[in-house]
Amino acid sequence: MFEGIGTAIVTPFKEGNLDIESYEKLLSFQINNQINAIIVLGTTGEAPNISLDEREILIKKAKEVSGNKAQVIVGAGSNGLNHTIELIKNAEKNGADGLLIVTPYYNKPTQNGLYEYYKYIAELTDLDIIVYNVPSRTGINILPETVYKIASDCKNVKALKEANSSFEQINKDLLLLKELKDFKIFSGNDDTAFQLLASGGDGVISVASNVIPLQMVQMFKFIKNGEIEEARNIHFSYYKLFKNLFIETNPIPVKAALSIMGFINNELRLPLVPASEPTMKIITETLKGCGVI
Amino acid sequence: MFEGIGTAIVTPFKEGNLDIESYEKLLSFQINNQINAIIVLGTTGEAPNISLDEREILIKKAKEVSGNKAQVIVGAGSNGLNHTIELIKNAEKNGADGLLIVTPYYNKPTQNGLYEYYKYIAELTDLDIIVYNVPSRTGINILPETVYKIASDCKNVKALKEANSSFEQINKDLLLLKELKDFKIFSGNDDTAFQLLASGGDGVISVASNVIPLQMVQMFKFIKNGEIEEARNIHFSYYKLFKNLFIETNPIPVKAALSIMGFINNELRLPLVPASEPTMKIITETLKGCGVI
Amino acid sequence: MFEGIGTAIVTPFKEGNLDIESYEKLLSFQINNQINAIIVLGTTGEAPNISLDEREILIKKAKEVSGNKAQVIVGAGSNGLNHTIELIKNAEKNGADGLLIVTPYYNKPTQNGLYEYYKYIAELTDLDIIVYNVPSRTGINILPETVYKIASDCKNVKALKEANSSFEQINKDLLLLKELKDFKIFSGNDDTAFQLLASGGDGVISVASNVIPLQMVQMFKFIKNGEIEEARNIHFSYYKLFKNLFIETNPIPVKAALSIMGFINNELRLPLVPASEPTMKIITETLKGCGVI
Amino acid sequence: MFEGIGTAIVTPFKEGNLDIESYEKLLSFQINNQINAIIVLGTTGEAPNISLDEREILIKKAKEVSGNKAQVIVGAGSNGLNHTIELIKNAEKNGADGLLIVTPYYNKPTQNGLYEYYKYIAELTDLDIIVYNVPSRTGINILPETVYKIASDCKNVKALKEANSSFEQINKDLLLLKELKDFKIFSGNDDTAFQLLASGGDGVISVASNVIPLQMVQMFKFIKNGEIEEARNIHFSYYKLFKNLFIETNPIPVKAALSIMGFINNELRLPLVPASEPTMKIITETLKGCGVI
Repeated sequence: MFEGIGTAIVTPFKEGNLDIESYEKLLSFQINNQINAIIVLGTTGEAPNISLDEREILIKKAKEVSGNKAQVIVGAGSNGLNHTIELIKNAEKNGADGLLIVTPYYNKPTQNGLYEYYKYIAELTDLDIIVYNVPSRTGINILPETVYKIASDCKNVKALKEANSSFEQINKDLLLLKELKDFKIFSGNDDTAFQLLASGGDGVISVASNVIPLQMVQMFKFIKNGEIEEARNIHFSYYKLFKNLFIETNPIPVKAALSIMGFINNELRLPLVPASEPTMKIITETLKGCGVI
Repeated sequence: MFEGIGTAIVTPFKEGNLDIESYEKLLSFQINNQINAIIVLGTTGEAPNISLDEREILIKKAKEVSGNKAQVIVGAGSNGLNHTIELIKNAEKNGADGLLIVTPYYNKPTQNGLYEYYKYIAELTDLDIIVYNVPSRTGINILPETVYKIASDCKNVKALKEANSSFEQINKDLLLLKELKDFKIFSGNDDTAFQLLASGGDGVISVASNVIPLQMVQMFKFIKNGEIEEARNIHFSYYKLFKNLFIETNPIPVKAALSIMGFINNELRLPLVPASEPTMKIITETLKGCGVI
Repeated sequence: MFEGIGTAIVTPFKEGNLDIESYEKLLSFQINNQINAIIVLGTTGEAPNISLDEREILIKKAKEVSGNKAQVIVGAGSNGLNHTIELIKNAEKNGADGLLIVTPYYNKPTQNGLYEYYKYIAELTDLDIIVYNVPSRTGINILPETVYKIASDCKNVKALKEANSSFEQINKDLLLLKELKDFKIFSGNDDTAFQLLASGGDGVISVASNVIPLQMVQMFKFIKNGEIEEARNIHFSYYKLFKNLFIETNPIPVKAALSIMGFINNELRLPLVPASEPTMKIITETLKGCGVI
Repeated sequence: MFEGIGTAIVTPFKEGNLDIESYEKLLSFQINNQINAIIVLGTTGEAPNISLDEREILIKKAKEVSGNKAQVIVGAGSNGLNHTIELIKNAEKNGADGLLIVTPYYNKPTQNGLYEYYKYIAELTDLDIIVYNVPSRTGINILPETVYKIASDCKNVKALKEANSSFEQINKDLLLLKELKDFKIFSGNDDTAFQLLASGGDGVISVASNVIPLQMVQMFKFIKNGEIEEARNIHFSYYKLFKNLFIETNPIPVKAALSIMGFINNELRLPLVPASEPTMKIITETLKGCGVI
């Protein structure tokens, strides 16, 4: 499992179809800026609106551009067991280095149900698995104790992406899960990634790194080198960007940003729609304010 | 669109497969107790874990048993546009009388995105549509103003199932949406259904009515007849049942209850698992306490 | 203990002092419009900023104007035991008919601490006590079970003013506390008072009745007569007023409203300040919209 | 204004009265362990239940024991302007080095009201003022922008004690308020003090330091010296203590802990009551677990 910064890459569209040319540019931008992993088909990649055929294209291209320089992790969770298995098989077949499996959303399993679900899945694949906790989207919170139990029993469950923004949860994650050998804890929130890393976390699965990959990588390296003040400077220099990439639902603002930067069309699939005019202005100003454009 | 009580019917399983014999018994129990609608493949029906082929069987059987006595409404929402369209086509083909379309979960569209999404869907079908708002599962709240705009522009959007438990939202729903001709507002929460009905609502899409269909129908009729005290008596007589059917995630406790009552096996599909022992005890006591068993 | 509508009366000021002339006008307006109780020195009366001498004047005047037509209930809670006792003695001395005792705010006692506190107080006075639950201000929620235990052990604890806006709490209040003989449950929220009354509640301690006493009294009477639709019409006719009297912290908007109506100066004591200009406009429009001015 | 760790000291009682002998022992324990400030009559000191005469005794004794080794900051806020002024005068008269002024609780002023309130107070005193934000108790959240405006206009408003546990708020505090010359930001939550300090904060107003003053001072020093890993070790070593001192409302568990350690009687004033038996056991085990006893 990687350490450092993984980018939850957007999926660019052109007139309703995948825009592979732009996608390749985005991937190269990431690899050239030393990113540690590409997370394909995460929420930021609009996974619920991508067909199996399209998934194949996106994963293969990411592998091709990344080569040995960055891991390719594939988002393969859903709220139905059979659909999740289908997505995992698709990821395996196309060469994924690992899987990001969100807790089943909407149907709100119990902690015991979560355990059984992850155990079932982990036994079906040899790929490494990152458990993804994002209560604001899923309606449930997987407890550190449950992750601990899963990771203890399933040797390929290797990491947690924690997007619960409460440091009560994050502190408990770190206290408990760091007892597990080689288990990694990633921040799922750019705006508190600095604090999670300073507390002993292993990396970030980032939206902002679509825009500022190098700066995120540097922040991570500073912390690992004990240069806390330098890391903090990066954190606060880009804090407004971290926040403003979420003034509408992700990935609406980051697609706006990447379109302003000239990387992609500002196009999304329903039920998501492009950023409103006020958001476009704020994103433009924010990018200028931190020197990105 | 129906008025009164619709039952969000569970999907019984037997060794992993659909248990059609039990399903038929459940449907007959509902129809014999004067239920106004059967909601097939809602959350209570574990929709995310039912295949297209199984959907066909479940919808057709519900139509067959209901005859002209109750409408059959089919849950056909998802968080991906193409998947939703697939589910709608499947429902149409199999004879659904209407559709229950939950707001897209997990990907959290904006209000504008919700409008575009429902508009797109409404134009694809002639069936009547119930918008379903359940923020605790979906991570978003569709505003009364957005529902108003959708229903104004789409003549087959005919009702709202409101499961936001705040009476601030419910009062605003009633104040605003009752201006629309023939638009219906259903409670999505059994424990406050009495209050929503007393405030002018048109019915309930109920979990508890799996267990007590006749009592729910009676509560509705009392209110419509202005017999508020009699309705209130039913509400408080079954209040503990309403609450305890949610001590674990629905439909875990209602499947426990129906298994205790002898209707079905206590079997669910992952990521859901059967009720814990303490829950089984509470459900048994609750059923006894209100005279169901 | 009264039944029906009690008005949490504002305390008018003029150049920093009590404005007794306006206060008398307000009281007469209430009494002439059949109000059932006057609640003096509640939160709406800016109690934390009123001295003991001023309390005396306000209570006596309320008693004088009310005569036998309405009960005078005095807010006498605080977050310190000795200060509460001081306020109770002051209320007793000046002729209060009952006491409104808020749960101690800020220091957040446990349920057991709340029980001990109310028991201690109840034994010190012969006046009837209304327990006041308002979690959004106090930081704690007194459970229905705790109120039940207090009222069971203290015969002068006679009522609950419930301002927790969740109908889960309100339903539990009604289910449990209605088992107590002669115990009354009042709504502390105008915007859901209709629903609480329809569910079997005994009255409202109201802010809106400062402005529309007669309409609130009528809504209550309609419900008690089983005329639910007429009550509902009043509820929805004044719903915007109920909400807009809380767009800034109470009593800021209700003082704005009463000043627009010509009853009082728009003056408050720090840390409260008069309504902003946008609020003044909204209040004016709202009063016009429901025919008050 | 101090930098580092300030202890929100408990107020020991004996048969209802102040226990000055124990208080002196507590103060000496703090001073001998290099604490940077003593916060007298904070929430932890049960301020709402301490008379003016008792305040005098507590402040004077703290000054006497602290000498020049630690600042004595006095909690002097309330929810009434006149009462706050009374408490400030009392603190000034008895030699306080600074004031901790909580945002007015319960009556929920607007941001503008908060500004006017602090401005009014700041002009009345020459003492340095710490603004104290604790939404879970007060029902309101003072925005970083409001604190910025107050501190810009009032030169003796010198610090913020931030007990909003959200790092969104804390990051905004640090980003905005660090632009002010010599303005200090203190953590008001022991369990996230490490993260706030690592992010550039200036200290902690601590409950846990009643029990482990030296360890808290060391954690602070490690961070200031850039020894982040050593600081982190202290944080996680005492994390369970930080949490368990809040399993009942503060100061119930810390008084339990100090009584187990032999410093004080386990006595509180109503509405607070001593820790329950289960809490006593947890506190005992926690103290053993981290080597305090």
